[in-house]
Amino acid sequence: MISRNIMLNGSTKTVVASEKDSLADILRAQMGLTGTKVGCNQGQCGACNIIMDGKLVRSCITKFSRVPDGAQVTTIEGIGTPEALHPIQVAWIAHGCAQCGFCSPGFIVSAKVLLDTNPSPTREEVRDWFQKHRNACRCTGYKPLVDAVMDAAKVLRGEMDVDELHFKIPEDGRIWGTKYPRPSAIGKVTGTLDYGGDLGLKLPEDRLNMALVQATVSHATIKDIDTAEAEKMPGVFKVITHKDIPGKNRITGLITFPTNKGDGWERPILNDTKVFQYGDAIAIVCADTEHHAKDAAAKVKVELEPLPEYMSAPAAMADDAIEIHPGTPNVYYIQKIAKGDETATIFDSADVVIEGDYYVGRQPHMPIEPDVGFAYKNDDGKLVVHSKSIGLQLHAAMIAPGMGVELEDLIMVQNPTGGTFGYKFSPTMEALVGVATLVTGRPCFLKYDYQQQQAYTGKRSPFFMNMRFAADKDGKLQAMETDYSVDHGPYSEFGDLLTLRGTQFMGAGYDIPNIRGEGRTVCTNHAWGSAFRGYGSPQSEFASEVLMDELAEKLGMDPLELRYKNVYREGSTTPTGQAPEVYSLPEMIDILRPKYKAALDQAKAESTDAVKKGVGISIGVYGCGLDGPDASEAWAELNADDTVTIFNCWEDHGQGADAGTLGVAAEALRVAGITPDRIKLVMNDTSKAPNSGPAGGSRSQVMTGQAIREACQALLAGMKKPDGTYRDYAQMKAEDIAVHYVGQWTAPATNCDENSQGSPFSVYMYGIFMAQVAVDTATGKTTVEKMTLVADIGSINNRLVVDGQMYGGIAQGIGLALTEDYEDIKKHSTLAGAGFPYIKQIPDDMELIYVETPRKDGPFGAGGVGELPLTSPHASVINAIYNACGVRIKRLPALPEKVLAGLQAK
Amino acid sequence: MISRNIMLNGSTKTVVASEKDSLADILRAQMGLTGTKVGCNQGQCGACNIIMDGKLVRSCITKFSRVPDGAQVTTIEGIGTPEALHPIQVAWIAHGCAQCGFCSPGFIVSAKVLLDTNPSPTREEVRDWFQKHRNACRCTGYKPLVDAVMDAAKVLRGEMDVDELHFKIPEDGRIWGTKYPRPSAIGKVTGTLDYGGDLGLKLPEDRLNMALVQATVSHATIKDIDTAEAEKMPGVFKVITHKDIPGKNRITGLITFPTNKGDGWERPILNDTKVFQYGDAIAIVCADTEHHAKDAAAKVKVELEPLPEYMSAPAAMADDAIEIHPGTPNVYYIQKIAKGDETATIFDSADVVIEGDYYVGRQPHMPIEPDVGFAYKNDDGKLVVHSKSIGLQLHAAMIAPGMGVELEDLIMVQNPTGGTFGYKFSPTMEALVGVATLVTGRPCFLKYDYQQQQAYTGKRSPFFMNMRFAADKDGKLQAMETDYSVDHGPYSEFGDLLTLRGTQFMGAGYDIPNIRGEGRTVCTNHAWGSAFRGYGSPQSEFASEVLMDELAEKLGMDPLELRYKNVYREGSTTPTGQAPEVYSLPEMIDILRPKYKAALDQAKAESTDAVKKGVGISIGVYGCGLDGPDASEAWAELNADDTVTIFNCWEDHGQGADAGTLGVAAEALRVAGITPDRIKLVMNDTSKAPNSGPAGGSRSQVMTGQAIREACQALLAGMKKPDGTYRDYAQMKAEDIAVHYVGQWTAPATNCDENSQGSPFSVYMYGIFMAQVAVDTATGKTTVEKMTLVADIGSINNRLVVDGQMYGGIAQGIGLALTEDYEDIKKHSTLAGAGFPYIKQIPDDMELIYVETPRKDGPFGAGGVGELPLTSPHASVINAIYNACGVRIKRLPALPEKVLAGLQAK
Repeated sequence: MISRNIMLNGSTKTVVASEKDSLADILRAQMGLTGTKVGCNQGQCGACNIIMDGKLVRSCITKFSRVPDGAQVTTIEGIGTPEALHPIQVAWIAHGCAQCGFCSPGFIVSAKVLLDTNPSPTREEVRDWFQKHRNACRCTGYKPLVDAVMDAAKVLRGEMDVDELHFKIPEDGRIWGTKYPRPSAIGKVTGTLDYGGDLGLKLPEDRLNMALVQATVSHATIKDIDTAEAEKMPGVFKVITHKDIPGKNRITGLITFPTNKGDGWERPILNDTKVFQYGDAIAIVCADTEHHAKDAAAKVKVELEPLPEYMSAPAAMADDAIEIHPGTPNVYYIQKIAKGDETATIFDSADVVIEGDYYVGRQPHMPIEPDVGFAYKNDDGKLVVHSKSIGLQLHAAMIAPGMGVELEDLIMVQNPTGGTFGYKFSPTMEALVGVATLVTGRPCFLKYDYQQQQAYTGKRSPFFMNMRFAADKDGKLQAMETDYSVDHGPYSEFGDLLTLRGTQFMGAGYDIPNIRGEGRTVCTNHAWGSAFRGYGSPQSEFASEVLMDELAEKLGMDPLELRYKNVYREGSTTPTGQAPEVYSLPEMIDILRPKYKAALDQAKAESTDAVKKGVGISIGVYGCGLDGPDASEAWAELNADDTVTIFNCWEDHGQGADAGTLGVAAEALRVAGITPDRIKLVMNDTSKAPNSGPAGGSRSQVMTGQAIREACQALLAGMKKPDGTYRDYAQMKAEDIAVHYVGQWTAPATNCDENSQGSPFSVYMYGIFMAQVAVDTATGKTTVEKMTLVADIGSINNRLVVDGQMYGGIAQGIGLALTEDYEDIKKHSTLAGAGFPYIKQIPDDMELIYVETPRKDGPFGAGGVGELPLTSPHASVINAIYNACGVRIKRLPALPEKVLAGLQAK
Repeated sequence: MISRNIMLNGSTKTVVASEKDSLADILRAQMGLTGTKVGCNQGQCGACNIIMDGKLVRSCITKFSRVPDGAQVTTIEGIGTPEALHPIQVAWIAHGCAQCGFCSPGFIVSAKVLLDTNPSPTREEVRDWFQKHRNACRCTGYKPLVDAVMDAAKVLRGEMDVDELHFKIPEDGRIWGTKYPRPSAIGKVTGTLDYGGDLGLKLPEDRLNMALVQATVSHATIKDIDTAEAEKMPGVFKVITHKDIPGKNRITGLITFPTNKGDGWERPILNDTKVFQYGDAIAIVCADTEHHAKDAAAKVKVELEPLPEYMSAPAAMADDAIEIHPGTPNVYYIQKIAKGDETATIFDSADVVIEGDYYVGRQPHMPIEPDVGFAYKNDDGKLVVHSKSIGLQLHAAMIAPGMGVELEDLIMVQNPTGGTFGYKFSPTMEALVGVATLVTGRPCFLKYDYQQQQAYTGKRSPFFMNMRFAADKDGKLQAMETDYSVDHGPYSEFGDLLTLRGTQFMGAGYDIPNIRGEGRTVCTNHAWGSAFRGYGSPQSEFASEVLMDELAEKLGMDPLELRYKNVYREGSTTPTGQAPEVYSLPEMIDILRPKYKAALDQAKAESTDAVKKGVGISIGVYGCGLDGPDASEAWAELNADDTVTIFNCWEDHGQGADAGTLGVAAEALRVAGITPDRIKLVMNDTSKAPNSGPAGGSRSQVMTGQAIREACQALLAGMKKPDGTYRDYAQMKAEDIAVHYVGQWTAPATNCDENSQGSPFSVYMYGIFMAQVAVDTATGKTTVEKMTLVADIGSINNRLVVDGQMYGGIAQGIGLALTEDYEDIKKHSTLAGAGFPYIKQIPDDMELIYVETPRKDGPFGAGGVGELPLTSPHASVINAIYNACGVRIKRLPALPEKVLAGLQAK
């Protein structure tokens, strides 16, 4: 232990700490300054940035011994507070920079040092600064952050009044479609919003810290688990194995389709007989401190007998492969599609046939905040589980039997969440923290390090795809055939549904009269598959969008015009045989066409031998909702102070559930003069708010939005007087009129049949992506110079939220196209190793154009947002690479060495 | 466990906590908001004030279950920050309201609610508010706080610019004698300064929390200590008894005089054979949480055999009293005084003889911050003890052998301290936390609750005094005889020195040619005696100042004129035969006289049958320093950035050691153009700064001030160039001139001999107090309406600090006079029970008049400050009560029932 006297946020502080502890941990755990976030904890994300003696410092890799006596340390708490925001923080709010908000403190601290040292940076200098200092953001696509820094600099230079950055409510009081800041923004930019890791530190002093004993092989039989030595380690309260678990020790995958050959009960809470994947949890150590828990976990001895490791779908489908879950074939679900006529004869006689094999891999979600959660027993004896869950009631049902808890004795709460992008559609540690509390009776807290985040949370499931198009000589599509295998890892949850998504979105956007195909879900030993933004569409549409470009080439047609010819128009049907709800695509292409032509001209003009430039197009389509009659519920209640509280479980990945809820409610309630400041939100706690369904598949804005609208309108009906004015709370009570209203909504949609035919979604989102890239012919490195998206997602609720979703989704598409992967368990265990896109990988030039066609089945015409920008942007990048240099990448990511090999093979 | 979603300082927070825990503990320990201080922890001090839903709330008595969901909570951290101070905080700094600063957050939060609800309060409304909300301050005498609220209100009303409250450095750069704010003020008013209880919470996560097993009787033989059950309690790491202590398990009292019949080794760290007083520590439980430690401590079984309890000096001196420490007589030290001729014959022949018995009791210090400390082993293997110690090197020497640590392996650090007023001149828990760390190897943290603070820290030692004056008919004093017994409790430390103070200060201020007397130190079973502001003088001078009034009455003289006749003039000597260093008293009386006459007239005019008003006078004298050649050391070092660091161990009770150090250094260094902002302080850590001696007896400003001056002047001599200008750091290094200088100072004084004759102090402080009181004849209740102090403490270093010391000392004198006591162990165990003076007990009207006679032996002419205002103000109050209603109280405190009994007896 050493001590230092430092000046911390303007006050003299004595700090006594271990010299080996990181400054970040000391600031957070000892000094209570949880505004400094810890993301990767290895200096790759900048969430932990602080200022020390005027310099920007990543506090997670700064050992306390390196803090000099007398150091001046400033954390986000020292830059501004909710009552006294710094101009950078105001700009951060104004530009919607705080989405999940987990990286915001680190970025703001970084920007502070930048502007302290360079008061007038150019946009490129801002980008260079964030690149150099490893500030990583997974939500925003970075562009809004640069906008914010430029505006803050203007304020600090005295060229702009900070008031110009504060949102002003329009005179008519209507915030629908505006840039109204999300309610959580102030907490996020000031570091005062507590995420799971912060809340865990703030649990009562008798909390136990958990450490996991995890498998370091991918497939094995468990012979013995010896906890004796671990139990004797300092501070250990309990070592938990499968034997201690009160319930059936399984997480149910809630099988969607009866033809699934599995039963959905194959995933252990703590592995007992077998290890199914690297990282599987075998034991939990609960101790007084995290250090003690980890030290003891290292002493648990696990005896394993190795088994063959099937690390891909083809490997697990090999004839000699053993069943990973004995009794269930590794190919456990098959989804067919049959639309229109048999395709074999069409292909035989078609003018043009084109075929390709495509692979989209195990994209890691890479939120800046690693997975985290905790549990405790409340005074009613109920188990309360806090996590990053984006499916609270769903997860309760999945984990309760395994833990041995009745559903009514389990409360699920979502913590403010530093990004999920879908991985939290699957339970991760919910059952682990729950079981720990059940066994110990104490609050139990678990946080993953980044290696655990990568290894032991679900990933995007790789699709191995073969696809054929038949077209006439004019380019009109006549038929499509598909064959694909989905590597879903060892756990089945929603693997059947994901496979169905292949039939729904391969070829989406185009009127293809005849389709035949088959997809299969394959059990493997690689990381289990969970939802990821776009869920199935980035895989499916990558195949059809690259194949469309290949078809255009074969036909000698322009790729945009080929698409124009085939997109949905009146009379068209989707691959599932559904009539689209709107027909925006031709109009959208018309909007893009002049930009596309100019881009082609520019690329041609700027291409050199050293740098080849090109332009690529792709169409993206995604449905809003779970399949068929998806439903949601929300409540509205008039309070005694004449405010209205909206209750729902619209979980927040960081996408802006609070802004979404507020926007819908404000739009519904404004006829009664109820302004946004009079609307309160109670969200994401199953003991307080109703089941609004999980926050996935861009369903929330539509389904939960409709439920909110219903609830608000029911309330208004109650409040409305015969003369058309509205009662206040006192009048409602005086007249004995209810003040609490339930809003429910069920989508007018139908499930697909065994041939994948049906109308599974009543609202779709449509987009056209245009990528402009430069390929360095010496290295094969691709730089995306501009992305353009023309989108129709219906009427826009909150423009700041929607823009943010678009920028961020496109950035993830660029990552998917060029760098991101989680295949190599070791190499890809870090952000940098897994190809996380830093700011210089994402273009500063991103153009968003909206065609706002109101949706009949969306609240006030709104559709969803989140999935659209990650449906197929990567396909446009890949098509642009081909356009630039003639190299066609069909297996993602398009690493420089792959492109270079293609260049060299020409 | 329950959870609440609250709005905390402008951010939404989820709080999970035990419903039984107090909001204060949750805010501090869980939410990291240690700006909210916990003082009494029973709703009597207001240090824990927070705002909940617009109302002022004492968070220590607010159970979490009483915090409603959705509550808006504001703590001091939400009111202002070091970078964005609230006007109340600025005013708090400007008026020197933050002395120890521990009550400041609670007062500021309280003032915020007051001004939110009443923007234009009168002074009396401010006082009513603080009284009603139990805001307790022990340092400031309250008046500056009211000044600050009035100014803050002006700023908030827009009638004053907040800049007017910011101190401006004079154009000549000289801050000596100004109201320069103390360096720690910002940290104190923002709640960001960490006191011991805050630092303890911020120790590394493996810290152990301590709970004591304490005696609940005052005298007993220990038969058995059974820890078996306690060791099995949850979270217990170790139960420590005397058997575990590596050293000799004794704290040495460092006997001052060889004639002391004790050896100074009678105080155990953990009691082994006997219990000597209520509260004695018998065992320590070290556990993971404070709750666990306390629960386990309750399970330690101690078998005791009761012994007679001697709860006062007379009881312990009774013939049949057994020796409390077997082998040492209960009367273990005798101090005689013999000045001039034998007094017996003078008394026989004197014109007038007057005699009285007086008692000043066991005044409790009542800091708002209860005692607190912790220890850890540093990386060099040294034991580091953090506490409220105001004698770091002294305490190291006192506790090292008992713990079994070599002195060079022990580092002592003083935490920012929420008031001591002298009790920390004795070690309290230093050895307990040290031993706990030695035994467990872990950081160990201990904080007392208020009952422990009262029962198990030293108190002012009661003096039982008999005194006689002989005078001629004109009132000239001819002789004094004294006989007194000092109840010093069971532990000897400095008890002999305190007894010597009786001979030095009985009759101080007056030229008394012939004195005989004897004082004795008595071992008892009541709370052990430790230093308390004024150390011996409040007892000694109470006797002589009341007796002077009685003499005046007998002579038919005015009490002021009697004093005027006898005070020190050229040729006078002190009771110890020393020639005073200055003769200011006649001039001071001349200044007071017209005010005194006016006060008498006013009292007469305002007296009624129901309310009798009166005026009382007393003279106060105290020496600055430990006896004789007291010494101190400080260092000055020129840094590479041309700042200067001053190193010392001038411990801070809250009196302003930082301001004192800075003021002296700035005055010394300003000739070289070194401004206050270029002076840094490294203080109160024995591993970093030299031994400056303990901070007691108003010695620091004189002794350490001189050492600082010496060090600075040595540095300046090194920096001075032949041309009279000064070298900078680079030039010093280039010329190989040392940059680090040691300043040492030894007072030109001599120890007293066995007859108490000598020149023990080279600098004295002089004061005349005037009290104006009103006595309610129906109840006997005394109200002090005004206090006036004419003081000569030499040249004034920092006016804000000196004013603050004066106001606060006078307030403690009023408490001593009227209400304060620690005699009844149960009744007096709380602030309110022990007669703590709240704001309405202290007059808003306090007048300070300074006669700044420079002291030859003080730095830049300065003397000490702290003791003077508590030498004899209580005597002036008691004399005023007599003047008002003819009731003479000789045994303090003058509770209403005593005064009423006097009135009824007339």
